[in-house]
This record gives sequence, structure tokens and C-alpha cells, in this order.
Amino acid sequence: MSKVLIVGSVAYDALRTPFGSVERALGGSATYSSIAASLFAPVAMVGVVGEDFRASDLALLRRKGIDTTGIRREKGRTFFWKGYYDGDMSVAHTVRTELNVFAGFDPVIHPAYRRTPFLFLANIHPALQESVLDQMKKPEYVVLDTMNLWIQTRRAALIRVLKRVDLAVLNDQEVRLLTGITSLSLAARKVRSWGPKTVIVKKGEHGALVVGSGWSFLTHAVPLERVVDPTGAGDSFAGGLVGYLASKGRVDARTLREGVVAGSLVASFTVQGFSVKALTGLTISRLKSRFEYFRGLSEIPRIRV
Amino acid sequence: MSKVLIVGSVAYDALRTPFGSVERALGGSATYSSIAASLFAPVAMVGVVGEDFRASDLALLRRKGIDTTGIRREKGRTFFWKGYYDGDMSVAHTVRTELNVFAGFDPVIHPAYRRTPFLFLANIHPALQESVLDQMKKPEYVVLDTMNLWIQTRRAALIRVLKRVDLAVLNDQEVRLLTGITSLSLAARKVRSWGPKTVIVKKGEHGALVVGSGWSFLTHAVPLERVVDPTGAGDSFAGGLVGYLASKGRVDARTLREGVVAGSLVASFTVQGFSVKALTGLTISRLKSRFEYFRGLSEIPRIRV
Repeated sequence: MSKVLIVGSVAYDALRTPFGSVERALGGSATYSSIAASLFAPVAMVGVVGEDFRASDLALLRRKGIDTTGIRREKGRTFFWKGYYDGDMSVAHTVRTELNVFAGFDPVIHPAYRRTPFLFLANIHPALQESVLDQMKKPEYVVLDTMNLWIQTRRAALIRVLKRVDLAVLNDQEVRLLTGITSLSLAARKVRSWGPKTVIVKKGEHGALVVGSGWSFLTHAVPLERVVDPTGAGDSFAGGLVGYLASKGRVDARTLREGVVAGSLVASFTVQGFSVKALTGLTISRLKSRFEYFRGLSEIPRIRV
Repeated sequence: MSKVLIVGSVAYDALRTPFGSVERALGGSATYSSIAASLFAPVAMVGVVGEDFRASDLALLRRKGIDTTGIRREKGRTFFWKGYYDGDMSVAHTVRTELNVFAGFDPVIHPAYRRTPFLFLANIHPALQESVLDQMKKPEYVVLDTMNLWIQTRRAALIRVLKRVDLAVLNDQEVRLLTGITSLSLAARKVRSWGPKTVIVKKGEHGALVVGSGWSFLTHAVPLERVVDPTGAGDSFAGGLVGYLASKGRVDARTLREGVVAGSLVASFTVQGFSVKALTGLTISRLKSRFEYFRGLSEIPRIRV
């Protein structure tokens, strides 16, 4: 069992989906991924919040066993995102983004955390991801997530930081945008050629494609009849995966495949509630029973020809 | 081992994809599905062609062991479709459709074929599908395919014929259009409530969802680096599936799951060449080795939690 350090955003989200709406609900890439990872391994979180950050939200993270020492409280307001989803739940429409204290985020890793073996660089500016990497002392395994914005505006910095990570997690649009290649497996190989030993292409409701060194893995998302709020699905997937890997303390093809399944399962819970509600209610026992359902659903029978 | 009767279109296609173009290439729903089914079981094909239909194309079908007695040659020209695919290979753009002899297609099932146990109603007007059903003598298993056009313009007739089939094969857009339900599993259940014991939702490059009586199955499409020509993928999938079912002579959940995998594998060959070129070159031995690759790629590992 190894520890995980997670650096990313902490946010308040106002959002509306066909199933309802919430105002100032806990969100952010570090939040979702840390709660997800905490299901499997000890997590320390690095982020910034404003004076408006609720004590109850900090308490929620701590109840999940998350070390919140690295969450700095700054003058001003917490990063705020307002958006909505309509028919197509795979597309988030942004109404407003207020960076607030996140605009000045400059993650400082306390010396006591610099030797954390598993590092997850959740979606933040690639230059900040690089700065975190510079502060770390030989992490065993580094995972990176990013977004369209950085691919479009900070491509060189992103490719520079990609060189230094073990696993890159991108969605289908991002990997196509980054490489200019339509075929997801060819695009993933292109990203691998820049550095990461393993590349995961998330395909939303269609699952994920994993391309490693001499192996690939294709997995489904757990099919759901009702996606209440898709926010944080990708972060939960990556966090669950990193937590799973850390819980095994090693990373080989088998553990990565298992981790991807674990991450998919975690994400399938996240989207069944608004904000972190369903995610925080998740237990290993509920995860296990969904795994059995999922395996029954997607096990490939041997054809008789 | 049972026989399969396949009723559908026979066409000449002129098409362009990013990988090249063909003029007057053999196509049509009955053509693709019959060649696919013939890999597993004896097939008899019912359709109509014009005076321009090449002897070499008839010979090709016969070489595949397909009984072409039911292909009528009429005065006029063969059904002609002209189209192209660009970046997104999942969308066919139609330039021109000339129904020609297909406009007067009124499938007559010769008495000798009315007791064929497996019937595949490939994509044609629902009223013609119904007429074929009326002529058949208690077929054991009836499979139906359709298209957007009939859902939009012949919905009542389509739902009437759906009541009388065992398995309906639709793509994701079609099942949403037909039911008005976004969730594919809920939409599939709605279609089941109209009659078919099993509903398959094809998701193109994302695989397929099968909803049966008390069971579901989720499968991937075989990932390909190069889709040369997607025409006929859906027909090949359905044809391969029906042929596989007929080869086992029975239909239960296990055989259906295997058949869906077999159909996906066949379709993965079809799209690797223009027209029926790659499909006709397919052998059981090549199918088997692709199955092993596919299984290795998508087998779900047991998570250790």
C-alpha cells in the first residue's frame, strides 16, 4: 500500500442537469479524484480554496481519510464554475468561470510530501504540473490529466510535462486534438512516443482504451439508465485508478487493467448523484457488487467455430 | 445446422472515402448480410437486380455457397447508391439514390423456401418485411433490421412488423428516434415491450448492447487503425450473427452472445476493404485469430478489493 499525492482544483459548482440543479456544490478535479482514490489508498491533497470554503466540506474530505494539510486557504473566493448539461450529457456547457483564488494557485509541496510514491497531476495548467514535478523527489509513478484548453493554448508546455509522466489520461477529443490523429489507438501511440509508458483514452459512456508497452485494453463504461450529473466522472475515473494502483504498490499491465476497471466503476457511482454526493456514499462492498454485475454484462464468450 | 433466408437490397454503390473510391461496386443489405452469414451456415438470398447486374457478381455470391435462386432479374437498372464518407466514418453522406428496379421490389418467397427456419429481414420497407413474414410457414427465428427512413415515414408499419420478430437490430440513433428515449438500455426495453424477445443496439465503433429476457450483454467493436469503407458494416454484423445462430440451430442467451461477437468480428473485416472485397476474403481461420486478439484486448480482469 503506497500513498498518493493529488494536485488539482477545488471548486464550487453551480450546475443544472435534466434531473435538477445545485448551487455552490463541492467540485474540482482534486476533490473528485481525491475522494475516489481514498477508497483504495491514503491520499494527501494539494489545492487552494477561498475564505468562503465551508468547514463542512473540509470535514467531508477528512472523513474520507484525506490529508488536507496541503489545501491552502487564501484571501478571496473559491474557484467557481457555473454550467449546465442538456440532452447530451457528455457535453458540459459553461455559463461562467470565476478563477478567484485559483488564478494565483502556485502549488507548493511541503517537504514532508515530496517523497510520496504516487503522484496524480489532475487537470491544471501544465506549467504548474511541471512545477510540482520539479519539487518532487523521485516519485515512483506519475499520472497526468489535462484538458482541451491547455492543448490549445499551452501545447509545448504540456508536451514537455508529458515527457516526465508514466501515465497520461486524456479523453477522445483531447487525444485527437493533441495529435491530429483520428484513430484513437494510433493517437495514443503517438502520445506514448512523447514519453508516457501508458496512455488511457477515455471515451465517456463508451468506456476507455488503454495503450501500454506491447499491450492494449479496451473496457466499457458501466451502462447506466440515469446519469444525474456527469461532472467529475473523468476525475473520479483517474482518481480511482491511481488509488487502486497505489493500493497494490506496483504497476504492471495486469494491475493497470484492474485499475482501469476500478476507476470506471467508481465513476459510474459519481454520475448517479449531484456533486460528490453519490461518490462519498460509495463503499468497497457496493463497488464489488457492481463489479460482478459489470463482469456478467461484458464477459466475452468463446465463439465455437 | 439450420438454413437462413435473407431478404433485402442488392445494389451497386459508387462511393468515396479518405482511402479511395469505387464506382458500381457490389453492395446492398442482402448482399453484405448473405456473404457474412454464409461463413457459418447455408444461405438463400431474395432480392432484385437489373439487366446491368454483372454475371461476375452473381458468380461471386455462388462461390460463397449462397443460393441465388431468389434473386430476380428485372428490366431496368440495379438499385444505385452514390455517397461518400469524410472525417467521421460513422456518417454516410448520400449524393444520389436511384431505386431503379428496387422501386418495384415485391419479394415473392418460392414455396420451397417458406419453411426456412432462420429468416433475416434486412433493411427494406416494413410493408415488404411484413409481406415476407406472411408468406413464411412458421419460421423458427426471425431477425429484423431497419433504418431511419422507415422510422420517420413508416413508424406504424414498422411497429406492426416488430411484433412478429424475435430479434430486432437497430443502431443507437434509430432506437432513440423510434422510442424517444435517450438511455439505450431503456430504449431497448421499450422496443422489447412491442414484441422482440431480444433487441440489439449497434453503436458503430463503440460496439453493441444486447438486451434479452432477464439478461444484457455489452460488447466492443474490434478497434481498427484504418477503416477503409464502413459501408455494409451493420449488414455484415447482422448477417454474421444470424448465420452464427443458424449454425448452432438454436437460440439461447449464450448463443446470442457468441453470435454478437461473431458478427462484430465479421464486420471488422468488412470495413477494412472497399465494397465486399475484404468480407469475401474472410475465412474461419482468420476469424478465429482475430477473436483471440479481441478477447485478449477486452477480457475484464477480476479486481482485488
